[in-house]
Amino acid sequence: MKSISKVQETSLEPISKIAAKIGLDDEDIELYGKYKAKISLDVFKKKAQVQDGKVILVTSINPTPYGEGKTTTAIGLSMAINRLGFKSIVTLREPSLGPFLGLKGGATGGGASQILPSIDINLHFTGDIHAVTSANNLLCAAIDNHIYHGNSLGINPKSITIKRSIDMNDRSLRHIIVGLSDQKGAIREDGFVISVASEVMAVLCLSMSYDDLKEKLGNILIGFTYDKKPVYAKDLNVHGSMALLLKDALKPNLVQTSENTAAIVHGGPFANIAHGTNSIVATKIAQKLANYVVVEAGFGSDLGAEKFVNIVARKTGIYPNAAVLVVTTKALKHHSRIEANGGLQSDVKTIQKGLENLEKHIENLKIMGLETVVALNKFPDDTEEEIELVRSFCEQKGVEFSVSTAYANGSEGVLELAEKVIELSNKKRKINFVYEDSDSIEEKIKKVATIIYGAKNVQFSKAALSKLELIKNLKTEHFPICMSKTQYSLSDDPKLLGKPKDFILNVTDIEIKNGAGFILVMCGDIIAMPGLGKDFAALHLDIDSSGNPIFK
Amino acid sequence: MKSISKVQETSLEPISKIAAKIGLDDEDIELYGKYKAKISLDVFKKKAQVQDGKVILVTSINPTPYGEGKTTTAIGLSMAINRLGFKSIVTLREPSLGPFLGLKGGATGGGASQILPSIDINLHFTGDIHAVTSANNLLCAAIDNHIYHGNSLGINPKSITIKRSIDMNDRSLRHIIVGLSDQKGAIREDGFVISVASEVMAVLCLSMSYDDLKEKLGNILIGFTYDKKPVYAKDLNVHGSMALLLKDALKPNLVQTSENTAAIVHGGPFANIAHGTNSIVATKIAQKLANYVVVEAGFGSDLGAEKFVNIVARKTGIYPNAAVLVVTTKALKHHSRIEANGGLQSDVKTIQKGLENLEKHIENLKIMGLETVVALNKFPDDTEEEIELVRSFCEQKGVEFSVSTAYANGSEGVLELAEKVIELSNKKRKINFVYEDSDSIEEKIKKVATIIYGAKNVQFSKAALSKLELIKNLKTEHFPICMSKTQYSLSDDPKLLGKPKDFILNVTDIEIKNGAGFILVMCGDIIAMPGLGKDFAALHLDIDSSGNPIFK
Repeated sequence: MKSISKVQETSLEPISKIAAKIGLDDEDIELYGKYKAKISLDVFKKKAQVQDGKVILVTSINPTPYGEGKTTTAIGLSMAINRLGFKSIVTLREPSLGPFLGLKGGATGGGASQILPSIDINLHFTGDIHAVTSANNLLCAAIDNHIYHGNSLGINPKSITIKRSIDMNDRSLRHIIVGLSDQKGAIREDGFVISVASEVMAVLCLSMSYDDLKEKLGNILIGFTYDKKPVYAKDLNVHGSMALLLKDALKPNLVQTSENTAAIVHGGPFANIAHGTNSIVATKIAQKLANYVVVEAGFGSDLGAEKFVNIVARKTGIYPNAAVLVVTTKALKHHSRIEANGGLQSDVKTIQKGLENLEKHIENLKIMGLETVVALNKFPDDTEEEIELVRSFCEQKGVEFSVSTAYANGSEGVLELAEKVIELSNKKRKINFVYEDSDSIEEKIKKVATIIYGAKNVQFSKAALSKLELIKNLKTEHFPICMSKTQYSLSDDPKLLGKPKDFILNVTDIEIKNGAGFILVMCGDIIAMPGLGKDFAALHLDIDSSGNPIFK
Repeated sequence: MKSISKVQETSLEPISKIAAKIGLDDEDIELYGKYKAKISLDVFKKKAQVQDGKVILVTSINPTPYGEGKTTTAIGLSMAINRLGFKSIVTLREPSLGPFLGLKGGATGGGASQILPSIDINLHFTGDIHAVTSANNLLCAAIDNHIYHGNSLGINPKSITIKRSIDMNDRSLRHIIVGLSDQKGAIREDGFVISVASEVMAVLCLSMSYDDLKEKLGNILIGFTYDKKPVYAKDLNVHGSMALLLKDALKPNLVQTSENTAAIVHGGPFANIAHGTNSIVATKIAQKLANYVVVEAGFGSDLGAEKFVNIVARKTGIYPNAAVLVVTTKALKHHSRIEANGGLQSDVKTIQKGLENLEKHIENLKIMGLETVVALNKFPDDTEEEIELVRSFCEQKGVEFSVSTAYANGSEGVLELAEKVIELSNKKRKINFVYEDSDSIEEKIKKVATIIYGAKNVQFSKAALSKLELIKNLKTEHFPICMSKTQYSLSDDPKLLGKPKDFILNVTDIEIKNGAGFILVMCGDIIAMPGLGKDFAALHLDIDSSGNPIFK
């Protein structure tokens, strides 16, 4: 668990000093301890005349169990751009407590490229996710309470689509029955989703102002009346309180990298079930404070990057000026599907085969109009031959290539990558949406499936087809789509590694996220509530007599 | 909703200035925004040689729906002691979000005697209660996960006594069924308690150090094996992580009063279901920083004050040097049970009759060895005659009396009360426990019931009797008891106002809080999860375009 080593934390600078480096004075920030701060939204007014910085989108090939080091690369890259004499800020999602306690390792980078103080960021941080949980659960409590007190809106308890949320990996809360003790209320099926998978989190991350936040919260579709009319959060009149609960959560969080440059860490939607990138407010404020903003999008180009372009960029006008595509030799071997001697083969043939996964991601970024540098995150046992193979492949494909040793060497290890990124980002950009607002939802899904995933066709379940009808009736066909599928494959089957061909994408269900303003398209069994393994991270966490974390 | 008026908040001083007034420098605190800070536990080492300040316990008669203004009086009193030239800190519990969103009004005092910034204190504050929620729910997730992964401890799912928690008034979560979707895990009955009613909150508030916290968390009894052996949190090996989740939550929070004196607000156990006072750490640290620490205990002398003496003082050696007993004419009228013309009568006869409730609380404090000043919290329509009646009653009973106008006038309105309190606290004190450690649990319950409540006898349900056996078997008979009963009556029946006679206290169930180190004695239907009314506070809360709270 290197990412939360104590050694790194001793070289921290006071956060006000980090703030000063990006032109923020004490008025612009609120301290949360010595090394964390929230940035006032008034900075937007103050910097209204400042030209927006360029945006570098960091994505990867389809992730593997080995970890590709995308966060580490993004942090290292931003540190390197700073080192080259430009102002750069890395913007990242805040880690969710559930996975931190569930899986080993945090979400704060690693080695010489981390954001700090990592233990605080990985634990409660500045409370944003707790605020999301509270706002979501106020809405849920208000719904059951409304039914209990007479149900004047006529909400059909069986139609309620919004679930309660908790920031914990708690399998037993996936499907529950609530309301057993009430004489008057509804006994009904319900469930908890992990807070970062809630629509409230998506809303927070897509809101540009308090008014926008409140309006989006009010628009959350919670279910239907007995006569099938939609019921929104605003009908229950709790969207004001929900926004109030999120008043501090909307302010981006400032921390620092292991080289004492600024990092903004804010919002945490997953990319396989939500739109998967840090808040718009964070990216926009970073653009006012830096020449280059390095933004991480979740998982591969088929998920985070696709959604960044088709949801985030479309809604906000934040167009990436370049992309970094992170890859490792291990991941390429994994995608080759060639296994021998019980492990991955180190011969170049294996990598060669796995390159087809990289190929598709390069193609995807080209399709969306993003100039790309492939960054090979080098591990100690990578051979020169292996690296050369990837380099020459990238040359063939006409994309830039650079080796990253951000983990081992920090900014020093990604200076070439930084130079290439800066060069690319000076080119004229032309972003291409994969589909148009005016396409039907069915068309939008088909375009993403065939163009980005490489599917032959799309099959819709009965449930999904009826939702397509509902979407038409509710006049939300203009929404972008947010695809929910496995991150491990370009397809909807996690076992199909490499570059699957001739597959049919199965749309199992569709949900209207009317507050966030997108249509969630469920492909397969993506669980919005993770479970814990037999051996989970919390079993290895402890505290000493002085209140310091111990990893055992 | 006066307690969260914006006007008050404009006169705030930076919290570091407030800290300096009580001898804390920048090293000793961590800022949470401009007006909140956490106090480092290292202050204990730094001030080890400093003599402890005196403790003033603020309690009241049995509360009524009108509100007695105990918090307001406590805040005003502390401000007044400061004004008299002594150092005083008021220590209070932190408000729970659930009731804040449920009932109108916060828990931060009112009028000219408030703690500020009230909206922040009433909302997420510094995240302590969220941390309690997380620690509790990690334990619960670990239990079901253990069963899911083979249940090597042999936990009987039907025996699990610990419940999940949430800081929301959510009636529908009182009784639920969990685990419906798992193939391997247990489908079982469960429920959520409001976080402040969880044992983790009691543990946090009774812990003196990180080691103590971790040990207590490990000792939480979660249920039994199939062969009826107790299972503790430490058997699941998550007590270390739970303590880590609470690492910042154990540090007391510093805020300020409306007269810019220091207030420490930390921990929030209810007094009808838990022990009902702020954290031990908060009171102890305040004793190192002030001559007088004004501590509020929840509800009347039958609940908060009794528990302060028999649980808190016994466990920690914090002995109050004097007590303040808050009363209002409205509450006395209410306790008279005389109603006419659809409202309370203003004639003195009504008050006379209600004085019997006050009488018993005066007696209770005397029994426990506390020198007392009765503080009449004056309302604008109180007549001189009414006030004189209470004054002369107190004279008869041999206790001090003072009129408080802390709400209207701040410290100015409680200077006499402050003088009397200081005088009393200089007397030699002799605290009397109501029962001895060596008494059986049955004896302990009988002593509190007869001596403090005035009951004739105690009746135990079958369930309670079997728990008495279990307690003997688990060798926890030496624990103090924590009575859980209605706050509205000296008895266990909320309708028995005044001074009920010849009643039998019904013990319906008993729970072993092995981590907190007390035996919870349930008398009647005390719900650990409140519900929302038809019209609840959140419907009247909103936010403006700048992120400021609006009350509508």
